[in-house]
Amino acid sequence: MLATFYKGNETITTVGVTNGAPGKDEVQVKIAFCGVCGTDLHIFHGVMDQRVSMPHIMGHECSGEIAQIGANVKDLKIGDKVVVRPLGPCGECAACKVGNSHICYNLNFLGVDTAGAMQSHWIVPAETIHKIPDDLSLEYAALIEPLAVACHDVARGRVAEGEKVVVIGGGPIGVLVALVARSAGAEVVISEVNQFRVDFAEKLGLKAVNPMENPIEEYVLEWTGGAGADVVFEASASKPGAAVMTRLPRARGRIVVVGIFGQAPEIDLKAFFLRELEMVGARVYEREDYDKAIRLAASGDLPLKEIITKIEPMSELQRVMTELSSRDSNAMKVLINCQEQ
Amino acid sequence: MLATFYKGNETITTVGVTNGAPGKDEVQVKIAFCGVCGTDLHIFHGVMDQRVSMPHIMGHECSGEIAQIGANVKDLKIGDKVVVRPLGPCGECAACKVGNSHICYNLNFLGVDTAGAMQSHWIVPAETIHKIPDDLSLEYAALIEPLAVACHDVARGRVAEGEKVVVIGGGPIGVLVALVARSAGAEVVISEVNQFRVDFAEKLGLKAVNPMENPIEEYVLEWTGGAGADVVFEASASKPGAAVMTRLPRARGRIVVVGIFGQAPEIDLKAFFLRELEMVGARVYEREDYDKAIRLAASGDLPLKEIITKIEPMSELQRVMTELSSRDSNAMKVLINCQEQ
Repeated sequence: MLATFYKGNETITTVGVTNGAPGKDEVQVKIAFCGVCGTDLHIFHGVMDQRVSMPHIMGHECSGEIAQIGANVKDLKIGDKVVVRPLGPCGECAACKVGNSHICYNLNFLGVDTAGAMQSHWIVPAETIHKIPDDLSLEYAALIEPLAVACHDVARGRVAEGEKVVVIGGGPIGVLVALVARSAGAEVVISEVNQFRVDFAEKLGLKAVNPMENPIEEYVLEWTGGAGADVVFEASASKPGAAVMTRLPRARGRIVVVGIFGQAPEIDLKAFFLRELEMVGARVYEREDYDKAIRLAASGDLPLKEIITKIEPMSELQRVMTELSSRDSNAMKVLINCQEQ
Repeated sequence: MLATFYKGNETITTVGVTNGAPGKDEVQVKIAFCGVCGTDLHIFHGVMDQRVSMPHIMGHECSGEIAQIGANVKDLKIGDKVVVRPLGPCGECAACKVGNSHICYNLNFLGVDTAGAMQSHWIVPAETIHKIPDDLSLEYAALIEPLAVACHDVARGRVAEGEKVVVIGGGPIGVLVALVARSAGAEVVISEVNQFRVDFAEKLGLKAVNPMENPIEEYVLEWTGGAGADVVFEASASKPGAAVMTRLPRARGRIVVVGIFGQAPEIDLKAFFLRELEMVGARVYEREDYDKAIRLAASGDLPLKEIITKIEPMSELQRVMTELSSRDSNAMKVLINCQEQ
């Protein structure tokens, strides 16, 4: 079998390795496709060198088939089409004890804290597996992980039918949040400074505004008849995004923090006072978000084809990472084909 | 009748004025006592000169008796002991239309946007009046407005019995929030840098920590067995308070923004991601918060006597304001006796 290894210094090699066997509560997944995530790019750039064990196999947005099954595993059989919910909670912390294991205080994120999916076969705990319908393509299924993120974000925002929603940031997660919110019956506008992404969102039938040309605050004011938006998703992880997010919601409107902010931005807390705003963080997903994402992906209602920019072989991972790191990259989602040729 | 007038430049005079008559939906309240609020100090220091109409009568934390009644007013009679909920909503904005008139987009705050209670007789809309029990003293009743703020804050934080609560800031509002949270069955600790206020809170039987001597983050970690606090109230309106507030809650813990931040502090949004924190703003009070505050004040369970530092006559208002502005002031709540001598 083949595996990709990040070895530090923006270097990735693809090499043949010995195929392992799953433990008694594990399965081995023959990986079909694995999406490249912003987190993988962070790893590639060395930002997480203190956290990952080198050489490191990246990847956590995968689809595949069950290839081997551990002795204790029920309800799964070889050949099942599956996706992996890449979370390894400790089971003992204050979050795990109250059923919030996705925000475990000691969470192992598979593909970051352990080896990931960018290899031809991946051994994972059986409890991380979700079966997918046979008629859902493995390419589209590789989008279920980020789609589950979006489902979780929209659930955290309690988006209801008929509500007016702003998504700040039109990258892959922002677009998926917008699509999931729309599928929940909301009216959605994306605020995005990259005109390519504005145009892309509009091609998907989403409303999108470039705030460099059309101030989003004024747009929302007019759109909502002066009231303000019901829900705002901050998915840009940018200081301007953090600055504007408090100026868009209505009285008692909700803000969902989707972006991961490496630095603490200035936040207008007086806006929280004046309008009694609510802000919640959202992290990864729960089991039901995966179930929801699988249903949505299988429904055929989402433009998943358009979101997949291209598919590249494992051997090209280093070039793909370099291209995605370029300022000129307008890619949405690049998949790595992990099937041995 | 007498009235106090702020005339700009930290100058207040007390003068005799003509007694007016209420309009048909108004009442005239013979004011007994009126507490001095931080907002009044802001006005005194000229911070709100653009907002108030000079000469301005301050004051919105009052108690008194009905002295005159407008033609349309039912359910009130001369001599009723009352307090005033000093809010004048527009009735037409997006907040008012959905029953959140306390966060009206065009809110008139009586005593700031209109003349206030620091006069012997005050004319207000009848709908702002809450009757109080005959056996509740008018001195204690002057604390109902800030107590209603605390009731609203605790309601916004959804504080439940047995929860562990941190209040950052041990000024009058912080102490009242702590007392109301305790009366809801929570265990409470106040974090306060002023040792006098730490000692004062402890005299009231509240737990209080000086974070300059005992880091509050470590304290909370140990107190909660590593889990984190259920609810954190930020009542200091300080940058250090805003910095530490995100480090104290448990997974899915709640932060209530109580302090009014004139400047936008840096907020660790990554903490919202990691623990899926929730933060809500709280502003003034709703009708039911006043009802709750009146019940609590009348119950005799709160140490209201200790919270009243002293009572001064209207003629001394300028000196009182100057004293309260001093760094050395350790006053909690000073009441102005608005009864003509």
